Amino acid sequence: MIASTESMPLRPEAEVQLDANGNLRHLLTLKGLDKALLTEILDDSEQYLTAPGSLPARSQSLAGRTVGNLFFEPSTRTRASFDLAGKRLGADVLNLDVNTSSRKKGESILDTIYTLEAMQVDVMVVRDASAGVPAYIARNVDDHVSILNAGEADVSHPTQGLLDLLTIRQHKGAFDELTVAIVGDIRHSRVAMSASQGLATLGVGELRLISPPALAPDPEAVPEARIVDNLRDGLDGADVVMALRIQRERIGNLDGIPGIDEYFANYGVSNERLELAKPDAIVMHPGPMNRGIEIESAVADGPRSVITQQVTNGVAVRMAVLERVGRTMSAK
Amino acid sequence: MIASTESMPLRPEAEVQLDANGNLRHLLTLKGLDKALLTEILDDSEQYLTAPGSLPARSQSLAGRTVGNLFFEPSTRTRASFDLAGKRLGADVLNLDVNTSSRKKGESILDTIYTLEAMQVDVMVVRDASAGVPAYIARNVDDHVSILNAGEADVSHPTQGLLDLLTIRQHKGAFDELTVAIVGDIRHSRVAMSASQGLATLGVGELRLISPPALAPDPEAVPEARIVDNLRDGLDGADVVMALRIQRERIGNLDGIPGIDEYFANYGVSNERLELAKPDAIVMHPGPMNRGIEIESAVADGPRSVITQQVTNGVAVRMAVLERVGRTMSAK
Amino acid sequence: MIASTESMPLRPEAEVQLDANGNLRHLLTLKGLDKALLTEILDDSEQYLTAPGSLPARSQSLAGRTVGNLFFEPSTRTRASFDLAGKRLGADVLNLDVNTSSRKKGESILDTIYTLEAMQVDVMVVRDASAGVPAYIARNVDDHVSILNAGEADVSHPTQGLLDLLTIRQHKGAFDELTVAIVGDIRHSRVAMSASQGLATLGVGELRLISPPALAPDPEAVPEARIVDNLRDGLDGADVVMALRIQRERIGNLDGIPGIDEYFANYGVSNERLELAKPDAIVMHPGPMNRGIEIESAVADGPRSVITQQVTNGVAVRMAVLERVGRTMSAK
Repeated sequence: MIASTESMPLRPEAEVQLDANGNLRHLLTLKGLDKALLTEILDDSEQYLTAPGSLPARSQSLAGRTVGNLFFEPSTRTRASFDLAGKRLGADVLNLDVNTSSRKKGESILDTIYTLEAMQVDVMVVRDASAGVPAYIARNVDDHVSILNAGEADVSHPTQGLLDLLTIRQHKGAFDELTVAIVGDIRHSRVAMSASQGLATLGVGELRLISPPALAPDPEAVPEARIVDNLRDGLDGADVVMALRIQRERIGNLDGIPGIDEYFANYGVSNERLELAKPDAIVMHPGPMNRGIEIESAVADGPRSVITQQVTNGVAVRMAVLERVGRTMSAK
Repeated sequence: MIASTESMPLRPEAEVQLDANGNLRHLLTLKGLDKALLTEILDDSEQYLTAPGSLPARSQSLAGRTVGNLFFEPSTRTRASFDLAGKRLGADVLNLDVNTSSRKKGESILDTIYTLEAMQVDVMVVRDASAGVPAYIARNVDDHVSILNAGEADVSHPTQGLLDLLTIRQHKGAFDELTVAIVGDIRHSRVAMSASQGLATLGVGELRLISPPALAPDPEAVPEARIVDNLRDGLDGADVVMALRIQRERIGNLDGIPGIDEYFANYGVSNERLELAKPDAIVMHPGPMNRGIEIESAVADGPRSVITQQVTNGVAVRMAVLERVGRTMSAK
Repeated sequence: MIASTESMPLRPEAEVQLDANGNLRHLLTLKGLDKALLTEILDDSEQYLTAPGSLPARSQSLAGRTVGNLFFEPSTRTRASFDLAGKRLGADVLNLDVNTSSRKKGESILDTIYTLEAMQVDVMVVRDASAGVPAYIARNVDDHVSILNAGEADVSHPTQGLLDLLTIRQHKGAFDELTVAIVGDIRHSRVAMSASQGLATLGVGELRLISPPALAPDPEAVPEARIVDNLRDGLDGADVVMALRIQRERIGNLDGIPGIDEYFANYGVSNERLELAKPDAIVMHPGPMNRGIEIESAVADGPRSVITQQVTNGVAVRMAVLERVGRTMSAK
């Protein structure tokens, strides 16, 4: 997709995300964003929450701005979440189905971006299956354009990370005493990466990444975490249990990766196994769920589940991030 | 699509559609809605009609609300009609192409719904090829969410039924003296079902359902109708003639179902055959038309055709229904 | 797509485009529109340009109107450009993916149009792969509907022509002393056709159409142009160089058409070859670009390139055209 003549970036991404005054300009990764900034974003997000059944929070803080959703991978929930977040802030939202049009014509990704930039699309929300694409785009856009990463390969999904942090904070308050257990295909999970980075920055007490050995992460990628291959040890005394979606095509197809039944038996989050966690532990999942594989239906629908609250928080953190990059633009 | 572990509903749908005060909360079927309510909806719809060439009717009665279009079957006209109806009432409209995203990922339909609910999508417009899906969803959503059926298998298409009733009322006034003839593949037609149910409730004089014997309905499904296998008898003295779209793949492929030429010869609505109907009979079709198969082009474009008026009425009845369920929400 | 029983139009299109008072009602082709009208549209477009990084120009001149984008061919940039143009004028915008729905059902194009007309879609933006479709539609719609051609086979792309004229005027001022060189697959280019027609009307000094002989245009189609088969002669002393996108499937597959390397060597616009043009020559391309085939990357990204400015101008001319046809409607 990226023409071979275009060289990939080397500079650390954190640098790229903030402008000269330290304001958020792009959101590519939670890595490198400091505790104060993450906390501010979570605080802002709370403003965008209203009681269920009441009208959603709205403002006109992005009125006149244009948000472009460029999803090079299919998505329902994240696309819808950004779409609603943009509209509820008064922005014009442009949804581009990039699979079926410019890709077909072989246009380079930067030319697509330059085209949108020239149409005065101020914020581009990008989902892509290739690592490095959002940062690559961010380094090449004009000063007045913001790039938001809406899911990047196995690498990063920062708004998902933020909504996970917000959900945990709402239920548990301070992070420093918490034990958070993330279970599933850690190696291929951008959700686990972003959550881990955010939790480390906020000073989580203990972070455990639980998976079959073949799906364990590179320890250097997550130095702050304890890598566990055993669900029993992983859940013991946990305050927060996050089950990850497993790609069905991964199960049983690789050496050392169990089949569906075996996966559920060993790594599925069930009520029985949750007995090991704290009595008031919450259960999270980024969706969409494979019920009966990585999570038991009784857990997903049970009293400890905060899964739909995560979705609600998703719209709120996206509104907070959009509003914030919009403010950075206006300040220039 | 619906996981086998989820049990399907048994309660009558009419109960589900109204809240404790008798206000419309969901629109799943016309069956069980009383004459007063249908008449109120038709009266409301009239407010949303303006002269051709003038600006369409608008209001802000759904401002701040979100309407989600979930079309699990492809559709141009019904989707566009709901899209415009929502926008013209000031709602945010979220169009989800569910075929190409969450279905691919194997998410259960209820999890998709719960996700949208958590995003504060207030009204979900659902089209699905499986019977029972809209009611199943309606039984499972939160109190503050409305489900509108935009076409359900062979079973129900209530906003189409309403637009048909409105169109007939505009031309003919009272229903009790009218003879309405519906011709085509009655057995597989949600359009015929909803029209029949609505006409029965409004006290139509006579309802005739005309089709080749192999495409005749189950008489128990339409007790109010006279089932006719002969176009000549069916059209005799009719005030209203509604031709249904025939699926080309059905013609000539089943025992007892004629080929295209034979179908047109025996069941096509032509000017010649309309001589049998009343001189001021109107001709209807839900679209999209197969010209030359179920309807002669000269009829579709002729003075008796009210087909484009049906489309205009479609936007109006959808605005009336959206406004009404929005009122039910606000009253809670 | 057009049913064989429907006869194609014979009347000249220019007549159809203007109402009885000479106001623009449809935009199908630049051919036949006079210099005063083209100049007015370009003047209007300037109002819709703002400095990069500032908010895009907006108005409410289409508030209450509905713009429908009917793209029978896939498109990212033109669709997005019309989408934003409509939204920034306050219109409701309906995007129809016509490939995957009504076409599948075999509905005639006029029935699709009549349906949208009945939904009070006031402006229909049509892209189609068949010649004559936009004019055919324009001849058949109601008085209060406008048709805008967003790309028609090899024949016409009038808003592209207008944005090209605007871009040239911004850089070069008067047209009568200019030499404009268009290079590429002229024969199959609606971009070249519309630019040629517009330039002829505005009285361009010299227009050169440069291509391999097998891709040269019919001289009768472009009587105002000098047809050149040699890039060296074509670029000599040019003020404006416009490279056209070449369809990769055309290269090397037809007699007399060179392969990719040979095409670039002979007809690719490179910095080396631009030495022949005037020192202040500008370089244009309608996008999406095949870098390294019809244009060298160093040229596309270089100081003479006005390619992204063309995109910005595209939104502005589309706003000007939408506003103008909206005014024609209101005057009726």
